[in-house]
Amino acid sequence: MKYGYFDDAAREYVITSPDTPLPWINYLGNEDFFSLISNTCGGYSFYRDAKLLRLTRYRYNNVPADTNGRYYFIRHMGEIWTPGWQPCKTKTDSYECRHGLGYSRFCSSKNGISAALTAFVPLHEPCEVNRLVLTNETEQEQSLELFSYVEFCFWNAVDDASNFQRNLSLGEVEVCGSAIYHKTEYRERRSHFAYYAVNDEIQGFDTSRDAFLGVYGSIERPAAVLKGTPGNSMASGGAVIGSHYLNITLAPGQSKSLIFLLGYCENPRDDKWEAPGIINKKRALAAMERFSTDSQAEQALSELKRYWDGLLSRFCLESGDERLNRMVNIWHQYQCMVTFNMSRSASYYESGTGRGMGFRDSCQDLLGFVHLIPDRARQRILDIAATQFEDGSAYHQYQPLTKQGNSDIGSGFNDDPLWLIAGTAAYIKETGDLSILDEMVDFDNRPELARPLLVHLTRSFDYTMSHLGPHGLPLIGRADWNDCLNLNCFSEEPGESFQTFGPSEGPVAESVFIAAMFVRYGREYARINQLVGQSAEAARALSCVDQIEQAVLRHGWDGRWFLRAYDAAGAPVGSHTCKEGQIYIEPQGFCVLAGIGIQGGLAKQALDSVKERLDTEYGIVLQQPAYQEYYVNLGEISSYPPGYKENAGIFCHNNPWVSIAETCIGRGNRAFLIYRRTAPAYIEDISHIHRTEPYVYSQMIAGRDAPRHGEAKNSWLTGTAAWAFVNVSQYILGIRPEFDGLRIDPCIPAELEEFTVTRSYRGAVYSIHVTNPGHVEKGIAAITLDGVPVSSPVLRPEGGGKRYRVEVVIGDR
Amino acid sequence: MKYGYFDDAAREYVITSPDTPLPWINYLGNEDFFSLISNTCGGYSFYRDAKLLRLTRYRYNNVPADTNGRYYFIRHMGEIWTPGWQPCKTKTDSYECRHGLGYSRFCSSKNGISAALTAFVPLHEPCEVNRLVLTNETEQEQSLELFSYVEFCFWNAVDDASNFQRNLSLGEVEVCGSAIYHKTEYRERRSHFAYYAVNDEIQGFDTSRDAFLGVYGSIERPAAVLKGTPGNSMASGGAVIGSHYLNITLAPGQSKSLIFLLGYCENPRDDKWEAPGIINKKRALAAMERFSTDSQAEQALSELKRYWDGLLSRFCLESGDERLNRMVNIWHQYQCMVTFNMSRSASYYESGTGRGMGFRDSCQDLLGFVHLIPDRARQRILDIAATQFEDGSAYHQYQPLTKQGNSDIGSGFNDDPLWLIAGTAAYIKETGDLSILDEMVDFDNRPELARPLLVHLTRSFDYTMSHLGPHGLPLIGRADWNDCLNLNCFSEEPGESFQTFGPSEGPVAESVFIAAMFVRYGREYARINQLVGQSAEAARALSCVDQIEQAVLRHGWDGRWFLRAYDAAGAPVGSHTCKEGQIYIEPQGFCVLAGIGIQGGLAKQALDSVKERLDTEYGIVLQQPAYQEYYVNLGEISSYPPGYKENAGIFCHNNPWVSIAETCIGRGNRAFLIYRRTAPAYIEDISHIHRTEPYVYSQMIAGRDAPRHGEAKNSWLTGTAAWAFVNVSQYILGIRPEFDGLRIDPCIPAELEEFTVTRSYRGAVYSIHVTNPGHVEKGIAAITLDGVPVSSPVLRPEGGGKRYRVEVVIGDR
Repeated sequence: MKYGYFDDAAREYVITSPDTPLPWINYLGNEDFFSLISNTCGGYSFYRDAKLLRLTRYRYNNVPADTNGRYYFIRHMGEIWTPGWQPCKTKTDSYECRHGLGYSRFCSSKNGISAALTAFVPLHEPCEVNRLVLTNETEQEQSLELFSYVEFCFWNAVDDASNFQRNLSLGEVEVCGSAIYHKTEYRERRSHFAYYAVNDEIQGFDTSRDAFLGVYGSIERPAAVLKGTPGNSMASGGAVIGSHYLNITLAPGQSKSLIFLLGYCENPRDDKWEAPGIINKKRALAAMERFSTDSQAEQALSELKRYWDGLLSRFCLESGDERLNRMVNIWHQYQCMVTFNMSRSASYYESGTGRGMGFRDSCQDLLGFVHLIPDRARQRILDIAATQFEDGSAYHQYQPLTKQGNSDIGSGFNDDPLWLIAGTAAYIKETGDLSILDEMVDFDNRPELARPLLVHLTRSFDYTMSHLGPHGLPLIGRADWNDCLNLNCFSEEPGESFQTFGPSEGPVAESVFIAAMFVRYGREYARINQLVGQSAEAARALSCVDQIEQAVLRHGWDGRWFLRAYDAAGAPVGSHTCKEGQIYIEPQGFCVLAGIGIQGGLAKQALDSVKERLDTEYGIVLQQPAYQEYYVNLGEISSYPPGYKENAGIFCHNNPWVSIAETCIGRGNRAFLIYRRTAPAYIEDISHIHRTEPYVYSQMIAGRDAPRHGEAKNSWLTGTAAWAFVNVSQYILGIRPEFDGLRIDPCIPAELEEFTVTRSYRGAVYSIHVTNPGHVEKGIAAITLDGVPVSSPVLRPEGGGKRYRVEVVIGDR
Repeated sequence: MKYGYFDDAAREYVITSPDTPLPWINYLGNEDFFSLISNTCGGYSFYRDAKLLRLTRYRYNNVPADTNGRYYFIRHMGEIWTPGWQPCKTKTDSYECRHGLGYSRFCSSKNGISAALTAFVPLHEPCEVNRLVLTNETEQEQSLELFSYVEFCFWNAVDDASNFQRNLSLGEVEVCGSAIYHKTEYRERRSHFAYYAVNDEIQGFDTSRDAFLGVYGSIERPAAVLKGTPGNSMASGGAVIGSHYLNITLAPGQSKSLIFLLGYCENPRDDKWEAPGIINKKRALAAMERFSTDSQAEQALSELKRYWDGLLSRFCLESGDERLNRMVNIWHQYQCMVTFNMSRSASYYESGTGRGMGFRDSCQDLLGFVHLIPDRARQRILDIAATQFEDGSAYHQYQPLTKQGNSDIGSGFNDDPLWLIAGTAAYIKETGDLSILDEMVDFDNRPELARPLLVHLTRSFDYTMSHLGPHGLPLIGRADWNDCLNLNCFSEEPGESFQTFGPSEGPVAESVFIAAMFVRYGREYARINQLVGQSAEAARALSCVDQIEQAVLRHGWDGRWFLRAYDAAGAPVGSHTCKEGQIYIEPQGFCVLAGIGIQGGLAKQALDSVKERLDTEYGIVLQQPAYQEYYVNLGEISSYPPGYKENAGIFCHNNPWVSIAETCIGRGNRAFLIYRRTAPAYIEDISHIHRTEPYVYSQMIAGRDAPRHGEAKNSWLTGTAAWAFVNVSQYILGIRPEFDGLRIDPCIPAELEEFTVTRSYRGAVYSIHVTNPGHVEKGIAAITLDGVPVSSPVLRPEGGGKRYRVEVVIGDR
């Protein structure tokens, strides 16, 4: 069952029924100011940091779901409704929500009044614009009343939701003309405030929530709206809202356009006040001035659209499969931008209060983002690297506002260092820019410890080699990529963090997964050294890689698949000798994509085992059989009910690894099948089962052991976004940046006859037309560049905006 | 305006209108299991620790206010209503909520059906009993449907409200007969679960919130209730609720009684399961068995009432003033019990997630509680003392579950150590039990550092003497009693904790308030040493006290009142030379009640200055003039808007100090006026202004600088409870335990002609009849014990339950 449809021309998902199985959200904002907005106008806004500088208050896990938001109550003909259905849930005559790239649009109508609300965050302006157009579609004059509504958060979202004995005495506002200024704490140490303004005269307002809703009032039926009278209330202590009240009369056919701005404004410390106790508003007024007319708002929205046109032109697919086209051209890349911006911070599931930027997460997010804005990826790599410790280990998370490592969770996730190599390699492959390696980068954010980035990569590489276990495999530390496999934890008491409790480090527990990472990224590290003329270091690195590869082949193979790990007692994890958890997905995917066992057939055998043991119709589960009880030697993975999360859920992030692995052994049909099973556009029809947004990936889909098999959770902020795009663009379609240039190496389903990719790369633009006359899965029979046959499938552009035409024929050479 | 009335005979406050200005709550439970319950059935339950073991989910600062709760939806004649009005807010034909001592009762009726819900936590049983009696008051048979509702919390309330990416995959339940078992995380490290059961056959149930409410459903109109059909849903992931469904048919006049139990059950680790994955229920079933009949429930409620009868018989007043009687006999003592149990943990304002037990708070709470259950006070003193550091300083807070000091906030509140002397002295004065001084008590919870409690008191005493500043006054550290006076903080950035940021310690900033504390409690320390034969130590202590008293007189007097402090630059705080904050309440009250300046007239002058500068009709404000801007040298106090909290709010806790001080100089009229102005029963008529419960104190009432002067905040959990009872019982009524016995020393309003106090004391019972024929304020003209004149006003009981009759005549001797 569907709740909408894709409008590919507009690059929108159009939701036609407001009561989607879960709130289906979108993100507004690209740099500093961000908003979450659901298909019913729910969500909240923040400036830079979702925990520390939150403008509006949102209630997670709330009843009713997904309140608050920015709400526009229309009181007309004795009924109250909004353009986005919530919070009133009044049935309107029509409803539509269009989630586009950086904007959302809501169109509803009732009793002859139509309301079109467009919400977006302009480029380079810290505010959310809400343009509301009300139209009288009847043949009589119509009068209506409009009440706007946002509830302000007292900046620090954690404090705001817990420290009531202080907060309930703090709230302060100013109202000046049609602008409401939320200035709680401005009188003391803050020099920033929020404003909520409209570009028209108002007939009243409210700033006290109690006055507007009534003490026991619900947002579904605010007292002031029911009564039709604003309170002109000035909040003092208690909860602070912003609500404008406008009386509007519309002639037949007449429209009224209003521009509401929810903005963040910061003043210099020495210019905070215009009079004692009165905030200096000149910067806020200037921003309002920039969005005071319809044409200004329209122009800002056009600029935003042009910005996205530019970004998405860098990788553009034309195939006969419209679902594939829309995933590749729009939604993969859009989700990659959002994960780059947000890491795992703020979504409908991530409360924005806990996790900073992840070292591992952000490095992986880069992989799918780097082609869009390489310069931002470059800066991110340097930011991440600066949190690395001198010994190569890394803070697992860092705070976006301060860029400092987060000592609450600390270090010891032994895969982390290698992801820095992965991210840096991806950047160099995309750009060819080796100068990044010479950038001086702090260790542990201490400038006196700064060394070139290349030294950071060396420390990453060496960290693994200096932390090997009894089988010569890398020690796992607190955990590797699978945060829930805690082999040095041994937690017995509830409430202990599986990630930080226990000895956490140990000399025995080893990870085959990290070994596979090392083989892959160790080779990239060696290649980077070759590129900068460090051939001795390159040779040393390759010798280490060989050593670890041999260890995997010797001690990491279980007979029909790769082992997952050895626990702290030296017992295998992910082995047929285990009672539960006999086979894990991660080492099968990552060993093969690292090239391990491709020669000799182990790779094929491992992937066949995945198919045989882990496949479901909704994707590949993480392991089998699910853990039915808690294993103190394994940790959090066995704490989940069977079928959920790492305990045999479909953890989407690792499905692309298997798909990539399949391309490494040439099985395009299987690779594509794996891709399709979790790719949102292909499963739109089961939205009633899947429940999360049909345009983006979720972190997890309940596995076959769960009562609700197929139900997804934690949409949007997942490493799946980056890996799925890497998989489909670089391995299935096979347009793959490498150090030496752009490799053409498709591995596709046999029935796919042709496709064209337009790809910007190192200053050139390639139009790559691939045909598959023989209906094979892999192999290049012929390739021409601007009509001239070439022998190498690796294209090396000259740059300068030159456009190339490439013809590729798949088949046996 | 009132929203109810006091029923003194029943010891209840009766709320007759459900839409009170704020939720008016009550506490259920006395030992391990606690519930908060509002006048509309809102609130939640927890076992021992409101943060770590929360049974039900509650949403603070929610819209609508005060949801969730335990709700009983009655579906009858096409309407849906509940006995407590919320969450439906359906207008019923009648409504009444009676908050009693440890129980609350709700009686409502609609369309001929009456519903009486009694909620209480039995003595010695970790569960909340909800007895619901439905009666058909019509002359026709009536059929109705009943849906119960609680929403379970996933134990750790902080994690429950933030870690959704994990929690949404966790929820697990069992349903067995009429019992719903919430067993999330039981399969791993927890060996406890919650149950919600009813003593009758059910016709259906729900455990999935989405199924019961609908995904976007509101608790005001749950989908299942609207439809009249339960979903028989089994939660798996997502939110977990408990809802029973019963079809009930009542003959004319017939009643149906149902007993719902919400309980906590812990199993031994080796007895967790009755079958793989099936929890062992035998302990839970045994508890259900104990509350399966009406007579069992009635008996448990009777036992609870007898328990309170016993407690309250220990101090019982009969005066001509019914408001005074009800405060003294019921509500003062009840609130003291609650603050003893809760410290500042869980209320409608305290979210139960942040603050542990306060060292200072808990010591003060004892002062009003110790006469009720001295043994529990004794244990509490030992628990608190065990968190003290070896140098006498103390963790400012400790966790109730572990009894370990809370290192997040640490130590350095330089008044803390002296409160240990205050609490211990109060215990000895009440009981005469000097053996507590010999108890071996850890320092810093380390058994190897254990020393007798008396040594702890010495360390407390010496801590002050070893931390003196330039004027010979005690250094303030992070703060003294006034947590918001942060003289060593200098915070410039938002989000920094005023209590823990900055150097926090400093060699200059001094507190006159701590000096006053030292004079008072230093004398008590000396007296304790005399009692145990340590006369040299006593003499040393008295010499120290004299030294500090002289320092106050020399450097702590501003000309017309006592100074508050010296800041880190040595500048006076609370001086006429200051621009704002010229006079503070705390040193005026505490210096005088410590006896400083009584001879010589400074005391009277200080108290006259309080009257002149700080009095308002709603109480005495903390300081004047209010700070209009932020002072980095003063800290948090200047961060509040003028008139709120410490910035010139009426901070109720310190009003009794001034009242006590007035009794010290014999001004009974003024002392009583100060008492009346904030005593809840006396201000019941302004509930529409005051807003919080008219039966208990609040922490703060907005001062005259605030727009909402008279509005109270943070009800229930405030040191005001203890100090107000100490004031009225020991200083105004003047029945005061001292080391040597029970002193009779009333200081009353001149118009009060007589009163009788019945007081249990050290195993005896005194009936003390005081008459005031001369209409004076203080002084004892005559006193007889069982008819025999005695010369000393200090009564020394023989114990053994002996009853004494004491006649006291006030007047000049």
